Amino acid sequence: MIDGHGDDLYNYSGIRMNFSSNIYAHADLSELEAHLCRRLDVIRSYPEPSPRSLSMMIAHDYGIDADEVLVTSGATEAIYLIAQAFRERKTYYVFRPTFSEYDEACCLFGYEERADGAICWLCNPNNPTGGVVTEGGMIEASTRHEWLVVDFSYKDYTLYPLPTADKLMRVGNIIQIHSMTKQYAIPGLRIGYVIASASVIRLLRRQQRPWAVNALAIEAGKWLIGHQVRGVPDLSAYMGETERLRRLLNAIDGVEAFPTLTNFFLCTIHPRTAGELKAYLVQEHGILIRDASNFCGLTPHHFRLATQLPEENDAVVAAIAQFLQQK
Amino acid sequence: MIDGHGDDLYNYSGIRMNFSSNIYAHADLSELEAHLCRRLDVIRSYPEPSPRSLSMMIAHDYGIDADEVLVTSGATEAIYLIAQAFRERKTYYVFRPTFSEYDEACCLFGYEERADGAICWLCNPNNPTGGVVTEGGMIEASTRHEWLVVDFSYKDYTLYPLPTADKLMRVGNIIQIHSMTKQYAIPGLRIGYVIASASVIRLLRRQQRPWAVNALAIEAGKWLIGHQVRGVPDLSAYMGETERLRRLLNAIDGVEAFPTLTNFFLCTIHPRTAGELKAYLVQEHGILIRDASNFCGLTPHHFRLATQLPEENDAVVAAIAQFLQQK
Repeated sequence: MIDGHGDDLYNYSGIRMNFSSNIYAHADLSELEAHLCRRLDVIRSYPEPSPRSLSMMIAHDYGIDADEVLVTSGATEAIYLIAQAFRERKTYYVFRPTFSEYDEACCLFGYEERADGAICWLCNPNNPTGGVVTEGGMIEASTRHEWLVVDFSYKDYTLYPLPTADKLMRVGNIIQIHSMTKQYAIPGLRIGYVIASASVIRLLRRQQRPWAVNALAIEAGKWLIGHQVRGVPDLSAYMGETERLRRLLNAIDGVEAFPTLTNFFLCTIHPRTAGELKAYLVQEHGILIRDASNFCGLTPHHFRLATQLPEENDAVVAAIAQFLQQK
Repeated sequence: MIDGHGDDLYNYSGIRMNFSSNIYAHADLSELEAHLCRRLDVIRSYPEPSPRSLSMMIAHDYGIDADEVLVTSGATEAIYLIAQAFRERKTYYVFRPTFSEYDEACCLFGYEERADGAICWLCNPNNPTGGVVTEGGMIEASTRHEWLVVDFSYKDYTLYPLPTADKLMRVGNIIQIHSMTKQYAIPGLRIGYVIASASVIRLLRRQQRPWAVNALAIEAGKWLIGHQVRGVPDLSAYMGETERLRRLLNAIDGVEAFPTLTNFFLCTIHPRTAGELKAYLVQEHGILIRDASNFCGLTPHHFRLATQLPEENDAVVAAIAQFLQQK
């Protein structure tokens, strides 16, 4: 794995506002937490080796078959399992800049990158840019590679219409990654799933070790689906606030905040660097941002923000402006 | 993974007594559970990509360096990571009968089994037999293979003296697997670790995906080590009860309970099969046992029990006797 992922709260103390993760930090998790408190006894037994009970609920929700779903320990396990399962294919391609773990996983299993790579990875909506590839774009990409892996981790953070999972299933060579971590803002639990044809799911399941998904993640997943919980309460308002934050940032001399279709977006800062900005914000304001300079294709001046509450957004804008006024 | 692991509680309803897992089912986890209830907010943030804070506590406990410890999502992740990291070695050996996942992991990464295999796997104490290999035996095995992997998952369930982790570190080619799952009777959380030379740990860490260990497992691990909690309160009494249970079983015509140095042991039943016995005990008595017939080298007549409370042990003995009296 690379050093320098976002949401690196554990490295700091005194953080009051966290813009560094792509996840909405203010989801109301009180009922889920109360449920988990009542069911903490699940830690006393082994979880299901492969959590069939949750696959069935997910499949039912999408109107697909349970054999077309594999529950994983977060979307990240899905990425590594796919890279592992298809390692004999030997070549891959990835649309950049994007989440670093597609490269990391492929590198680990000896792949080489080529424009016509057998496995093509697409993060949609894309981290860190916030861009979205249309249904037509995905279908076109699927014709140019043996397999197209689409990582839908951020699908609940855009208003842009994306095809439903069951519709995309009909394109035979698309493998979908979904993140309950992101959907419900529970990154500490580690839970996600793959949707693909039954034969691909069988291949992946053979590569997955038993008990990969912990018992509390399974319990949470079942409760969240059973209660039809939504992570982000009002997506329209949240996207509106994202646009307001971008406008405020673009009004600062030396900062550019790029367009996005999600709740997170890239910015550049000049003449100073994102690393310097991050250190300043942590130390002087207790604010954590994502230094995006380690995304392949980006520069030392790139950083990424995820929109938070209006008063927090105002605070980060003021703090960045203050940083640039320092001499 | 194979079908038919133990502790398959999720397949049944109405189980009142569980002898199928090797873990002590009556550990007092109330304080840990209360602590996790208070700290459920950790699910809202990403865990450390590689839980350095916990590695440091474990290393401190053993008097070794944090670079000699890798925290994993249970001992099972450790097994698969080791098989993955050394896959270019291509050959392995395993002492049988034993836990099936060494074979499964090696098979997944294309190994072949040979008596002089590069990677030798030893479960010590051994699942399912309850046997223990001495320090001298381990050192001797380490001279016959490039790497000796010793799985110490059950080390807290024997009175037999085993060398300390730091002492074994001095044998340069031994890789140790430890299970907090087993030590503290928390299999639902998924937490374990590897102890090996810094260069082996570096190799394994490069193969491990980020966020492999969930935030509640890290939180629990830190709390348990910080509070010096013991999983099994009185091991001598527990081993004495294991001997009592074995004697009672051996008094039944048609049952043989084999010697053990741990809290679990193999049995055979004749003329009927372990599968028939398991089905009967579930249905008629709400008792779950481990049908051990799928361990490579064992027969349809083998089953495994882990000692529970005295009244439960009396109940399983009576139920097995009753099963054999049926015509």
